Amino acid sequence: MVKESAVSEGLQWRINMQDGSSKILVSESVPRTRVCGALQGFFMGFLFNFWGFILKAWNIGLNDPKKFIHCIKVGLALCLVSVFYYMRPLYRGVGGNAMWAVMTVVAVFEYTVGATLCKCVNRVIGTCLAGALGVGVHWIASQSGKRFEPIILQISVFLLAAVATFSRFIPSVKARFDYGAMIFILTFSLVSVSGYRVEKLFELAHHRLSTIMIGTSICIITTMLFFPVWAGSELHNLIGNNTEKLADSLDGCLADYFGNDENADNTKKEAPKKILLSYKCVLGSKVTEESLANFARWEPAHGGFNFGHPWKEYLKVGASLRSCAYCIEALNGSINSDAKAPDVFKAHFSKFCLRLSSSSSLVIKELSTVINTMTKSTKIYLIVQEMNNAVEELQNALKSFSEQSTASLTVPELEESDNGAGDTTASPALVQIVPLVTVASLLMEIAARTERIAEAVNSLANKAEFKVKSDEKSMQLQNPKVLTR
Amino acid sequence: MVKESAVSEGLQWRINMQDGSSKILVSESVPRTRVCGALQGFFMGFLFNFWGFILKAWNIGLNDPKKFIHCIKVGLALCLVSVFYYMRPLYRGVGGNAMWAVMTVVAVFEYTVGATLCKCVNRVIGTCLAGALGVGVHWIASQSGKRFEPIILQISVFLLAAVATFSRFIPSVKARFDYGAMIFILTFSLVSVSGYRVEKLFELAHHRLSTIMIGTSICIITTMLFFPVWAGSELHNLIGNNTEKLADSLDGCLADYFGNDENADNTKKEAPKKILLSYKCVLGSKVTEESLANFARWEPAHGGFNFGHPWKEYLKVGASLRSCAYCIEALNGSINSDAKAPDVFKAHFSKFCLRLSSSSSLVIKELSTVINTMTKSTKIYLIVQEMNNAVEELQNALKSFSEQSTASLTVPELEESDNGAGDTTASPALVQIVPLVTVASLLMEIAARTERIAEAVNSLANKAEFKVKSDEKSMQLQNPKVLTR
Repeated sequence: MVKESAVSEGLQWRINMQDGSSKILVSESVPRTRVCGALQGFFMGFLFNFWGFILKAWNIGLNDPKKFIHCIKVGLALCLVSVFYYMRPLYRGVGGNAMWAVMTVVAVFEYTVGATLCKCVNRVIGTCLAGALGVGVHWIASQSGKRFEPIILQISVFLLAAVATFSRFIPSVKARFDYGAMIFILTFSLVSVSGYRVEKLFELAHHRLSTIMIGTSICIITTMLFFPVWAGSELHNLIGNNTEKLADSLDGCLADYFGNDENADNTKKEAPKKILLSYKCVLGSKVTEESLANFARWEPAHGGFNFGHPWKEYLKVGASLRSCAYCIEALNGSINSDAKAPDVFKAHFSKFCLRLSSSSSLVIKELSTVINTMTKSTKIYLIVQEMNNAVEELQNALKSFSEQSTASLTVPELEESDNGAGDTTASPALVQIVPLVTVASLLMEIAARTERIAEAVNSLANKAEFKVKSDEKSMQLQNPKVLTR
Repeated sequence: MVKESAVSEGLQWRINMQDGSSKILVSESVPRTRVCGALQGFFMGFLFNFWGFILKAWNIGLNDPKKFIHCIKVGLALCLVSVFYYMRPLYRGVGGNAMWAVMTVVAVFEYTVGATLCKCVNRVIGTCLAGALGVGVHWIASQSGKRFEPIILQISVFLLAAVATFSRFIPSVKARFDYGAMIFILTFSLVSVSGYRVEKLFELAHHRLSTIMIGTSICIITTMLFFPVWAGSELHNLIGNNTEKLADSLDGCLADYFGNDENADNTKKEAPKKILLSYKCVLGSKVTEESLANFARWEPAHGGFNFGHPWKEYLKVGASLRSCAYCIEALNGSINSDAKAPDVFKAHFSKFCLRLSSSSSLVIKELSTVINTMTKSTKIYLIVQEMNNAVEELQNALKSFSEQSTASLTVPELEESDNGAGDTTASPALVQIVPLVTVASLLMEIAARTERIAEAVNSLANKAEFKVKSDEKSMQLQNPKVLTR
């Protein structure tokens, strides 16, 4: 037996022995203030952590207020649907099945209009199909006598559930009808299982369908009328932003590498570091793009997008952006590698490399403007041409560098700029300029991939019939070859 | 008015004019056999397409028979749960609420054990929490009179639904409790809404919970006892296979580039082309890896994996694999670019490049063996050392090449191998070997990233306590530095 005795100075644990005597277990006195302090500390720590979590969550919402609006919309839709319960005349109509309407709203309401519509259509089609099949199978089973009825029902549930589950593994079905297949299994099981008990099977099916229709209607109205978030617009903005980020990253990357010579302004060096890694967003956006494109197909015309907007073209643009981002990743890797090129060589090549990178990023930025403004660019032909000229110049620079180095073993420009480094320039060992050559080569590869982005954006602009600025129309007539290479 | 008159020879379209006369619209006779033929053709085409779809779906199953087994398991679980309906004594126990058990099975049964467990726990916790809150709110509302009851209930539904929906946007909540938050909203809405009508609120909550428990138990038993698919094992195999694919890709890439000189066997050139692009699987596997790691945490000990197996380490290995795959992508791009290095230079460098690539791929293959067999490798120290030697050799080759070219303007080896190309070798223009230098530089970068994979795998092996082969233990004692660099 253990007994706790609270003395005014502290706590004592006393064990009562079998012979009647008692022994103090903990003689050390723990002042009450210390216990209180520990408890207070624990409580404050918990509060502090919880407050941090709340602040973090709040910032998520502040960064994208559409998320707050979505939450309000979900609450609103649920309040609307619960009206069917609270208002007596409506309650008499749908009865206890109003539950299905609540369930539909919770299960079907998604962040974007497209996703909600997709789920609504899936739910209705899945329910109808499974309901009809369930009633049919139930009729067949009821004709075959009391003994075989459960067996036939069991086998049908087993077979159809297995087939519908398997269909969810097929990519084309999974992309569009994954939720529908689940609802099919659910409804078929419910109808054929409860059909065995509930006599009024048709009434059940009818009630379930009508409540689901009420739920889906409320969802569609709420999602489309109050600050709608269109999957199509989200995809459009995502691709536009990713294009911009890629251009910024490329600029940041090169500024980081050649920055020591060109931009002496060290105070501005921290900001680009953050931008430099923004290409990583492009690397991991494939899944988001695909799901948005998938949902966008279900959406009606909105903003500048018609019903048959070529959403698949956005995926192609996204793929070409990613292909360019892989190269920027490799470029970033070779820039940060241990092997460093001597500054004299870097100075020689920096203007060519920087010219190529800035013209590439100019092309990418122009493409992001094309996407963001949904206006065809006529300037793009000129700046792609300029980028190709920059590629040629860099190639010529490499050529002349090797010719000069093999002819005189010194580079005139380098001698002028750096007289002390005469020994180094006397033998421009290949191994020393390997990092530079790699950067140059990757830049050329990036330029080639930038052209592929331009082609993808051009194809998108043609298929989506982006408008042409009126003052630029005449220019385009003079340059009919605009991006038709 | 249009009238169709079927004559024995064919079909005629006749328009009745306003003045009473009639005009034959289509005078061309369409023989009945042709209509039948067209219908038959359409029907056959449909059947052909449908058959193709079925075959494709069947192949998906054949390639991964676990998908067939999963379908059978879903059917089985549904049959088991419907037993509650068909057997009268059980039916009396749970009554009409057995529907919830069916619903639970359909909603909760997932492909992997981890995903099923995660959803089961989420469903139970969400239901309990929301049920308790719902009953509490309902009691408060009922105390405040008939007039305020629906208003309080509406406000509580709105607020809690909004907060729970917002929590789904927080990454840490989304990763673990996304489904739970949805179930929370659903249950709370149902309880507080139907609490207004159904008098026996506690009985409803109790029934719902017990049927959900039945459903989740059936799911857990079915998913764990019949051919379980563990998310942990899937993740382990995925990472192991991806590692292997990366090694094959690297080999294929270099064989493709230097193949003309080294492997004259053209018949074997098609097979590597397919393997060459297998690194693309690694590029896009991030989302799968993350969700598998997320589900694996819920799984009990199975196979060689304990409950606290360091699943996060697999994500680190996956990230390092992807980082290497980006480089292989860039390498592949520069290999397929228009700029080609002259064969004489290629022949000079091929042996160094091939040595480095094969030693890198050897390291990656050894790492895949480490993962697949869950056995620490002692050889890895030696082959990483060998890879680093190969890097040094390649660097020396680049150095000696530039020294030779600046000293004598000819490369002795090249003169021997290619006497006719004397003019070309006289001036080994830098621009000509740019593609080669890029390939060499990227190979060195790949070697650096391979070492990072080795570090990640080593950290995994240490944390997961992979076993050491008994005959290799003594070797490791001699080389205590094994991968502790």
